[in-house]
Amino acid sequence: MIKNFNDENFLLQTRTAERLYHEHAERMPIIDFHCHLDPAYIARDHSFENLAEAWLEGDHYKWRAMRANGIEERFCTGKDTSNKEKFDAWARTVPRTMRNPLYHWTHLELKTAFGVTKLLKPETADEIYEQCSAMLREKEYSCRGLVQKYRVEVVCTTDDPVDSLEHHARCRRENLPFKVLPAWRPDKALAVESPANFRAYVERLSAAADMEIVKYEDFIAALRRRHDYFDKAGCRVSDHGAEQFHAERYTRGELRRIFNKVMSGLALPLDEITRFKAAMLATLAEMDWEKGWVQQFHYGALRDNNSRAFKLLGPDSGFDSIGEFDVARPLARFLDGLDARGKLAKTIIYNLNPRANEVIATMIGNFQQGPTPGKMQMGAAWWFLDQHDGMEKQLNALSLLGLLSRFVGMVTDSRSFLSYPRHEYFRRTLCNLVGNDVERGLLPSGELPFIGKMIEDICYNNAKAYFNF
Amino acid sequence: MIKNFNDENFLLQTRTAERLYHEHAERMPIIDFHCHLDPAYIARDHSFENLAEAWLEGDHYKWRAMRANGIEERFCTGKDTSNKEKFDAWARTVPRTMRNPLYHWTHLELKTAFGVTKLLKPETADEIYEQCSAMLREKEYSCRGLVQKYRVEVVCTTDDPVDSLEHHARCRRENLPFKVLPAWRPDKALAVESPANFRAYVERLSAAADMEIVKYEDFIAALRRRHDYFDKAGCRVSDHGAEQFHAERYTRGELRRIFNKVMSGLALPLDEITRFKAAMLATLAEMDWEKGWVQQFHYGALRDNNSRAFKLLGPDSGFDSIGEFDVARPLARFLDGLDARGKLAKTIIYNLNPRANEVIATMIGNFQQGPTPGKMQMGAAWWFLDQHDGMEKQLNALSLLGLLSRFVGMVTDSRSFLSYPRHEYFRRTLCNLVGNDVERGLLPSGELPFIGKMIEDICYNNAKAYFNF
Amino acid sequence: MIKNFNDENFLLQTRTAERLYHEHAERMPIIDFHCHLDPAYIARDHSFENLAEAWLEGDHYKWRAMRANGIEERFCTGKDTSNKEKFDAWARTVPRTMRNPLYHWTHLELKTAFGVTKLLKPETADEIYEQCSAMLREKEYSCRGLVQKYRVEVVCTTDDPVDSLEHHARCRRENLPFKVLPAWRPDKALAVESPANFRAYVERLSAAADMEIVKYEDFIAALRRRHDYFDKAGCRVSDHGAEQFHAERYTRGELRRIFNKVMSGLALPLDEITRFKAAMLATLAEMDWEKGWVQQFHYGALRDNNSRAFKLLGPDSGFDSIGEFDVARPLARFLDGLDARGKLAKTIIYNLNPRANEVIATMIGNFQQGPTPGKMQMGAAWWFLDQHDGMEKQLNALSLLGLLSRFVGMVTDSRSFLSYPRHEYFRRTLCNLVGNDVERGLLPSGELPFIGKMIEDICYNNAKAYFNF
Repeated sequence: MIKNFNDENFLLQTRTAERLYHEHAERMPIIDFHCHLDPAYIARDHSFENLAEAWLEGDHYKWRAMRANGIEERFCTGKDTSNKEKFDAWARTVPRTMRNPLYHWTHLELKTAFGVTKLLKPETADEIYEQCSAMLREKEYSCRGLVQKYRVEVVCTTDDPVDSLEHHARCRRENLPFKVLPAWRPDKALAVESPANFRAYVERLSAAADMEIVKYEDFIAALRRRHDYFDKAGCRVSDHGAEQFHAERYTRGELRRIFNKVMSGLALPLDEITRFKAAMLATLAEMDWEKGWVQQFHYGALRDNNSRAFKLLGPDSGFDSIGEFDVARPLARFLDGLDARGKLAKTIIYNLNPRANEVIATMIGNFQQGPTPGKMQMGAAWWFLDQHDGMEKQLNALSLLGLLSRFVGMVTDSRSFLSYPRHEYFRRTLCNLVGNDVERGLLPSGELPFIGKMIEDICYNNAKAYFNF
Repeated sequence: MIKNFNDENFLLQTRTAERLYHEHAERMPIIDFHCHLDPAYIARDHSFENLAEAWLEGDHYKWRAMRANGIEERFCTGKDTSNKEKFDAWARTVPRTMRNPLYHWTHLELKTAFGVTKLLKPETADEIYEQCSAMLREKEYSCRGLVQKYRVEVVCTTDDPVDSLEHHARCRRENLPFKVLPAWRPDKALAVESPANFRAYVERLSAAADMEIVKYEDFIAALRRRHDYFDKAGCRVSDHGAEQFHAERYTRGELRRIFNKVMSGLALPLDEITRFKAAMLATLAEMDWEKGWVQQFHYGALRDNNSRAFKLLGPDSGFDSIGEFDVARPLARFLDGLDARGKLAKTIIYNLNPRANEVIATMIGNFQQGPTPGKMQMGAAWWFLDQHDGMEKQLNALSLLGLLSRFVGMVTDSRSFLSYPRHEYFRRTLCNLVGNDVERGLLPSGELPFIGKMIEDICYNNAKAYFNF
Repeated sequence: MIKNFNDENFLLQTRTAERLYHEHAERMPIIDFHCHLDPAYIARDHSFENLAEAWLEGDHYKWRAMRANGIEERFCTGKDTSNKEKFDAWARTVPRTMRNPLYHWTHLELKTAFGVTKLLKPETADEIYEQCSAMLREKEYSCRGLVQKYRVEVVCTTDDPVDSLEHHARCRRENLPFKVLPAWRPDKALAVESPANFRAYVERLSAAADMEIVKYEDFIAALRRRHDYFDKAGCRVSDHGAEQFHAERYTRGELRRIFNKVMSGLALPLDEITRFKAAMLATLAEMDWEKGWVQQFHYGALRDNNSRAFKLLGPDSGFDSIGEFDVARPLARFLDGLDARGKLAKTIIYNLNPRANEVIATMIGNFQQGPTPGKMQMGAAWWFLDQHDGMEKQLNALSLLGLLSRFVGMVTDSRSFLSYPRHEYFRRTLCNLVGNDVERGLLPSGELPFIGKMIEDICYNNAKAYFNF
């Protein structure tokens, strides 16, 4: 018997999986503690003109698939190409994405947001475009409407320390039925490899913190002021997008000299760059610990690999890769340094290369400590791995080498207001794995009430307890 | 219900997989765009004396299995051991290879080439040997006969730039019902780590190109002459067997000095070796781009690990391993350099270590560019990975991180005229994966006509469109 | 139909798997050629006071799970916490370990040792504790009793060269119905990175070997004396727990200087440390070859990552990780050096990071040599990987890239007398994999008698033939 595509039991291979999903997972609200939604869109409650704007602007996943399908760049990112032309190019590509998560995401989004169950392909492109675009222009489909539609309780955006957080403030003032909180992402404060950019950033930081930054200590003080400011604005999580962890030793004197050097516009040698990054990672981690925040690390991406495209389109345009970074040793040293000083905050480490799943899953075990269950977390499968195989590998590694039951679960990590079905995708995958285990006798079916509760915990309760939103 | 071993539905777990295979995959001819067949065998239409000659001469896969089974070396590669003795040692080993691809390949070859469905083991060794050896001596089982039997349209051999290509010329003159084309494999032109061998190679190149080679520029000019010659002989693909990618910077002056140094017999330090290799990779890649060829890279093997055996038997005797090379960064730089100069040819990268599947599958995405669908390819599972698990991992990585639908598919990569069932093995594995997805509702069963076409594309049409044979 | 948890067909998904397990695997005795049991416990035939002592003392797997569950350290390793309090904390944790091997091991141990089929959780903790503790105090449940209960024929402990082996001697004198043999684990003889500890160790070695150690040659001579002593005591296997393999070149003069330097208390630079380790690995490997022993390597762990915990609790307390060591090249050189000198002993390499499975599985193939079938072995899945996913990956890599049929199989590698069901767990996993292959037509069902024999070989016969116990 062939299962239907994308029906209510999508991804659920067993009856137990169906029960776990429909009786437990599906009912839980969403806490989306890491995404890249633009808070301005929520603050002004933006409505999208059409499905192309909602789907194709800024979605580098789709652009990559289109390029691989032989679609010319102007239909991906071109300024002079109409929305409908881009959408048609995408509709031609969709059938070519079979077995890629885009095929699933696309149809899950069409179904859950718009009730469209037709498959997107050239023959259906016009109809789907018209119908969904019309719906998007309705109030119910505004940005706020979409967030509510998917029963999201908390949205944590991703924000630079110099950000004014004005949009978050507006959301707070307007008493939305969900929280829109900032997350602290200080990547640029570590980016001393480019002196000119770093110096420009320090100037912006100086303005934001309203203080002069002359020396290293000023720089840290300004960051701390902004950290305080974020905390007051409700921020409870940080995030870092570094390639690697750094745990090189350094002295205060070295940091001062390195800071002065880069501010004077001089290029730094590699060892000074890594020492500075190591110092910043540790210093920022201690700030997070002091505030009781959760720190997140999305490490391991190799970005902007296509210099021709980078010149034309800038970052986040679909020219990034999974990197090959060995982290066991520097990560151990980084976490150990904080732990030894008694300043290790709750931590989530997201891994981008499946080859490191077992390393990360065992590394967090070295720093678990009561009374917080799951103090150290292996983050959900991320970016390229955010599909059922990647999710299964992450869930299995965490299960076999740690405690699945204490996992804080999924994040969308998306720039799109239509990406919330990724939580559904994750939940279905989770329930399917656990359901399979029950049916195969790897878990006791008599414990289904407990197991159902465990599913609810992973979908919602664990995050609720872990974060102080 | 236990499935039969090696019957018409071998490897096909679902009805949908059976349909995809029998109604689509099975019907397609073969384009074998990378193998190690000896063109002389086709040119003179060699007939094998017996099954031992056809199977055991030069097959290091089988020798490795025999050694692991405790068989003495003289039954593998010995000069004074009879064909029948070697075959008997192999027949003793076959049952011990259960779960290894050799067990499947052996019985698939016996069945598809000779119609033998008995299992090979000591009890059946004599009968199978006699029957197959007798058949091999018939005209229908000559090298040309076997290629036709498996409906191969194109065979690309693997040839050194100094090769005369006389056998290819003879095949062309005789108007065979299939094409036998050379492939350009210039590994020796990069091998400056051994000055004596390199110098001897330059002398052979000088003779082949009919020009004096005094300086670096002559060397490149001679290679270009041979490149032109290969192109005229119908060559449309290159191939490289380097351990790693290199993208170090270099100047023309440095290359001249390095060339002169190695030609004078001096050993080069590591940084000069890698700079020279980087230059050669880039220079040769540009030649391929100029001609509109496809460039292939089989990177990542660690060869000749057993020095005792190497002294006795030379290379390619079964003492090679999967290596551990981190390639994300050098590969990105290598491809980016070519792309930035607008000289990136269509490219296929074959990966030998499963730990790098996700890296390669995402790396090709950084350089995809219309109007060629699937311009950048992740090559089929290779060498040690050329079995159903390795194939599934490659197909899944490519599917999840790129576009399976644009994949140019399988190659035999074999030295044996009996290895063509590897295409069948690949096709069954592919149909099984996709069929499973349909039956599980991961792909829409209503799209089976489209999916069937996608299977045909991967088996044949994509390669047909991609190469200019 | 939902399978029962942990019944007689636990982990067996097909009828063929059931037959292979019950008619073949289950019947075979156990040769446990690597574990960490304390021979003193067997010598004095220790009886455990209660289930907490038997289960929780020294079991860092359980401590890690408890810490991840938010249990305070005093309930894991605290001196002032009662056995029952610790047991209760563990009972609270057990349901939280679902999908972790601890959940399976716990219930398999309860069932096979004590006949308890209830699930351990807070509600059943008292009853299970009382019942099992009472049984443990009976003679049948002494350490010797447990070893016999699980039909173990040989136990190889893990012993330092300076160990007196008095407990092994007592076991030999008392003519136990199973063999208790030492295994030679000379890790401390390589640990020159800590001069003070190394010097202290040399003093202990000097006493054990009853000879003065002044220079490097004395050091080697003393080790050789102990090697002889171990051999006379029935030792037939060595084991090494190094992070990495080393194959750096060295001269005798360098080794002398390095030895003198470290003995004088001076810290060694990294290159001297690795050269010394390389020399010791090679020298000790040659001793093993001379005696006809089997050498084992458990490489790849990153230990003692939490310095705070290390200060409190010392090593082996649950703060270790899977490391990221690239070994292809140094391992190839190490093995090749021995092979080239004709002194490569039978060798088992245990891999701790799944990313290296394919590397190890192909590396052993480079040094296979008749007449010993499976001379080079890829060891069973180890430590963190000792669970059904890790086992399946090891078994699959070995099958696909080597000969499963020649595998010497499982070891407990445990400190606990209750860990013997790990052999059962392995055997069930093995039978399940092979049974699945038969039912899917990947292996011929007509060969079931041969396949059953293969299962028996892997469970027992291969180890019996491989070792000279």
